[in-house]
This record gives sequence, C-alpha cells and structure tokens, in this order.
Amino acid sequence: MVRIIVDCLGGDHGAAANVAGAVAAMKKYDDLNVIFTGDAHAVRAELEKCGFSDMARVEIVHAPEEITGEDKPTDAIRLKRESSMIKGIKILREDESVHGMVSTGATGALVAAATLRIGRIKNVRRPAFCPILPTMSGGIVGVTDSGANMTVNTDMLLQFAIMGSEYLKGAFGIDKPRVALLNVGVETEKGDDLRKAAYPLFSECEYINFAGNMESRDLLSGKYDLVVCDGFSGNVLIKSTEGACVEMLKMLKRDIYSKAKYKIGATFMKSMFAKEKEFMNYQNYGGSVLLGTEKIIVKGHGSSKAVAVEKCVEQAYRMQSSGLNGRIESVLSEIYGE
Amino acid sequence: MVRIIVDCLGGDHGAAANVAGAVAAMKKYDDLNVIFTGDAHAVRAELEKCGFSDMARVEIVHAPEEITGEDKPTDAIRLKRESSMIKGIKILREDESVHGMVSTGATGALVAAATLRIGRIKNVRRPAFCPILPTMSGGIVGVTDSGANMTVNTDMLLQFAIMGSEYLKGAFGIDKPRVALLNVGVETEKGDDLRKAAYPLFSECEYINFAGNMESRDLLSGKYDLVVCDGFSGNVLIKSTEGACVEMLKMLKRDIYSKAKYKIGATFMKSMFAKEKEFMNYQNYGGSVLLGTEKIIVKGHGSSKAVAVEKCVEQAYRMQSSGLNGRIESVLSEIYGE
Repeated sequence: MVRIIVDCLGGDHGAAANVAGAVAAMKKYDDLNVIFTGDAHAVRAELEKCGFSDMARVEIVHAPEEITGEDKPTDAIRLKRESSMIKGIKILREDESVHGMVSTGATGALVAAATLRIGRIKNVRRPAFCPILPTMSGGIVGVTDSGANMTVNTDMLLQFAIMGSEYLKGAFGIDKPRVALLNVGVETEKGDDLRKAAYPLFSECEYINFAGNMESRDLLSGKYDLVVCDGFSGNVLIKSTEGACVEMLKMLKRDIYSKAKYKIGATFMKSMFAKEKEFMNYQNYGGSVLLGTEKIIVKGHGSSKAVAVEKCVEQAYRMQSSGLNGRIESVLSEIYGE
Repeated sequence: MVRIIVDCLGGDHGAAANVAGAVAAMKKYDDLNVIFTGDAHAVRAELEKCGFSDMARVEIVHAPEEITGEDKPTDAIRLKRESSMIKGIKILREDESVHGMVSTGATGALVAAATLRIGRIKNVRRPAFCPILPTMSGGIVGVTDSGANMTVNTDMLLQFAIMGSEYLKGAFGIDKPRVALLNVGVETEKGDDLRKAAYPLFSECEYINFAGNMESRDLLSGKYDLVVCDGFSGNVLIKSTEGACVEMLKMLKRDIYSKAKYKIGATFMKSMFAKEKEFMNYQNYGGSVLLGTEKIIVKGHGSSKAVAVEKCVEQAYRMQSSGLNGRIESVLSEIYGE
C-alpha cells in the first residue's frame, strides 16, 4: 500500500485538476491511496464528478487556506498552518504510514517546509530538484539540481549525481544512467573551480556511470540520461531550453498565419504540429521531484492540469514502490562508511 | 581611417572565408583597411578570386602557423609566435595605428593573448564577451559575459552592464539599452548571494537602464536589450537557447519527411522554413566581441563563412568608429573618480 498526499490548492486549477489527476493514478495502481488536503467540499464535489466512489482509498483533510507565490516561504510555514500545503507536510511528517506528497503550490514554501519539517535521508547534504525533460531521440533526461540550491560544493554535486541516478533507475527503469556534468565545454579541464574539482570525483565514483562534461546545447540530444549542476545554472538551463522551444513554436504559428499559401500547407501538417506541440508539453512529463528528503515530495508546475497531476502522483508512487530512498541511503552509507 | 587585422587561420574555412568576408566589409566602408595574417600565398589567391585589387588598402603578414583547440592557451602564446593569431596580437599591441582584430580561431588562446598582451581599458576589472542574438520580435539582444570569466563579483557584473550598454548604443544605435540581470526568477530577492548583492547596485547605477531580473526563458522575448551574467551561466544560457532551436528545426525536418502529406504541405511552406532557418543562422549576427580590452577584439565562430566574417569585421569597424572604448573609459572614470 502506497499512501500519497495530494495538495489541492496552490496551483492554477485547484481541486478540479488535482482530484481528477489523483483519481486517474489510483485507477492505474490498485495499491495507491490518496489523502487530499484542501477545501473538503470542493474535493468531494470533484470526486463525484470523476465518478470515483471507492471512498476506502481516499481521505479528505479540510484545509481551505492557500499559500501563494506572494507569501514569504518561512512566513508561510509559520503563519499559514491551516493551509493545504502545511497541513499536508504535517501529516507527512507525523504519520509513518504516509509516504509522499504532491503539490502544485508555491515552490519556495514547499522547499522550505520540506527541508525544515521533513528530515533528510541519512548523509544527504542537501535535497535537490530533479525535473524530467523529453529528448529529441524519444527518451528522457533528468536535470538535478534545477533550483533548490543556489550555491553548492563538489560533495553536493556528487550526491545529486548519485540520487538522480538512483531515481532514473527506480522510477524509469534506466539501467545505467549516463551522468553528465553541466559545463562550458566537454574537455576535462573546462569550467570554474567547482566543475574542475568535481570532474575527478565524478570520474572516480563507482556508484555513477559518468559520461563527462556536457555543453548545454546537448541537453535534448539524447546522449545523456542525467545532467548534474548547481541550482542556479540548472535553472538557467531548463528555462532557456523550454523558453527557446516555446518561442520557436510561437514564431512558427505567427509565420503560418502570415501568408495564405502557408496556411494551406499547414492544413496538411496539422497532425504533425499537434504531435510536436504535445511532445513539448511539459504536462506530459509530470513534476520535479525533490531528491534527498526522508519522505517523497513531488512539485508539479503551477499550471498543471489533471494529466500533469496524474504523472506527478505516478512519479511519487514509483519512487515509493521502487524503494528509492532506501537505495539512496544505502549507497551513501557505503560511501561515508556508516 | 580604421585598420583591422583579420586572422586568416584557425576557423574551419581558412583564408577563403576570411578574405571574402573582409573584402565585403571593405566594399561597404571606404575608410576601412585590413591587415591579413596567415598564409600569404593563400591570402593573395583569395584576394584575386574576389577581384579585389585596391592593394593600398590591404597588407599581408605571412604567418602560416595555426593555433588549434588542442593547443593549451598559454602554451600557444609562448610557443606559437609565428602563428597568424599571435602575430596579429603582436601587431595590435605594437602598432598604434591598428585598431582591432577579428579571429575565428581558438577562443581560449585568443582570450589569453588578448588579456595578457593587450591592456585593459583603465578601471576595467575583466574583459567580457558579448555575443548578439536575434529576438523573436525582430530585434537583437546582447549577452555579457558569455564565457570569458567563470567567476565574477558584483563590481565586474556592473562593469559588464556598463560596457555592454555602451556597445549596444555605439555599434547598434540602441538609445537606452534595457539591461536585465540573469536570475532564477524576476523578484528582487531571487538568486544566489552574487545576484542579491548585484541587484541594488544595478538599480542605483545611473549609467545603465536597469530593467530588473530576467528568467532565462525570456532571452528571445525582445523585452531586454542586454542580459548580464557570470561567464558560466551566460555560456549555459546561450548554448542551451541555440541548442534547443537547432534541435527543434531538426525535429521539424525529420517529421516532415516521415509522411507523404507532410512533405506536400511543406512544399507550400518552403520560403517560410527558409526564412526561419535564416533567422536562426548565427552567421548573420557576426561574432562575440570582447569588451574592455584597449584594442578591439572580435571572436567569430569557428565555422564562420564569409558572411559571418563580414559581420565580425563590421562590428570591429563600428566599435572603433563609434568611439566605444573612449566612452567606456569615460563612464568608468566618472564612477571611480579618476
């Protein structure tokens, strides 16, 4: 039995997207139960809309207060105890039988609450975000850290590599994830002092399959399964890649509408453009998991619809059922000798 | 009279691209003279091919040795004195009547030679690269530093902002360049300690038009004229943006060829795709200028063809004729009071 909390407030689509997404995941996995935190009335109404009646598998915790991007993270934790997010974190912390939480709410508050209220896995220096992107060769690539830690050291980078590798093995069945270190060039000697010092550590580590430095242009190439970076440059990497893809699609659309013959041509290619738009739609790839906390945390994009929430809940389910945290703990204790 | 050195070795297309590009620029600007360094025989042959005979405007310095990406930068300077690049730098250093140099050769060696052999403008802490990218609204955006300085402090970041602003004013006629600080979010408090400390300095500086923090996804949006960053994240920003655009175009092409009806549709859109490909072609936007050195240095991409070299020579010409370095010096001495 896997028990996951779903925070029904904070995202753009409230209980509707969160309940529908969680229900879809429950239909897929018989041993998945969900605890909803949010406006109990709204949650019940959405469950009814979905035609979900197996009430033994759900629990509803009334917490109608919402944390927004405007709330200062530490204030949110202290002052908004009745919010869906903080109540969820409290249950996660106190109830041993609850395994994880999915939230599309404010990132800052979630990271703060998770790191302050939920413990870290033994030996983990810092939890790190690891979102998943599609590659052009049809696979996926994880990026860790993508924004939880602005400043890191080599030890943290190596831990990100280990945690990310275990995640890709456990949740996506990738046998020996090819790990790259984000850098300004592929040569061994490239980069700042941090990268230069990290390179030999990565090379020597027997717990990862190190494939060398990666230039950011190769993120979508399919050559790597996991890219390791500090949270600042990881954030730049992901958002610029997404931004460029979005701007390209916008340009295509604008250009197609600029001439009659382009519009005619585009009618032949409707299904192609639809497929490409779908391919670039982050909703299909779930959320950004936080690696290294004792309990599972998955952060969905604020604009997540039901399909994205479903993927987030699935990610949490697979992290738990694959025994991810236990494996991270065991690898780290082999390294640190305790 | 503006005198620019053009290094004819080091890029993928040798004397052919470099001579043709320089000749095209000379045809545009009557008061532009060029000194070619490289294999004198090859340079002469290429000049003849271009039908250029105004030999009073060119000088050829025989330097047939080439610096490659394999050469360690400091070794290249010391051991390859007869190379086209190092001979060029020597002339630039010693001859007061020579204003700048364009090279498509190895970046590391060029940066090392420029910073070690050519002085910095008074008060400049560190020279910084500033490439130019096209925006989706039809304009351009500069990014500085894009890779010359892996580790920077707030003072350097502010200088990058000032030098980049003056460059965009002088060489591109942008009246009040909107300057953004690359960060992980737009809010004032975002980022690492460096960005947090830089923000108020940028806000208070009267020599730049500060528009706040920028998320990397907005690089191509047209909202900003200049993005300021450390060389590591700037490099990640540019290469991931370019990489994503290239991968998108590849995907489009692959998908079009996957079905007969897509191929038919694409025949209607040929001119559109050609325009878009041209738009994304960095060859049309010249090179990456090094801001802050006493003499002008423009680094062209290794794969530069004649059109790209032409743009690089033009950039060098406009930097010189707009009096850029004098203006940078005067702004900095107002700030530092000397």
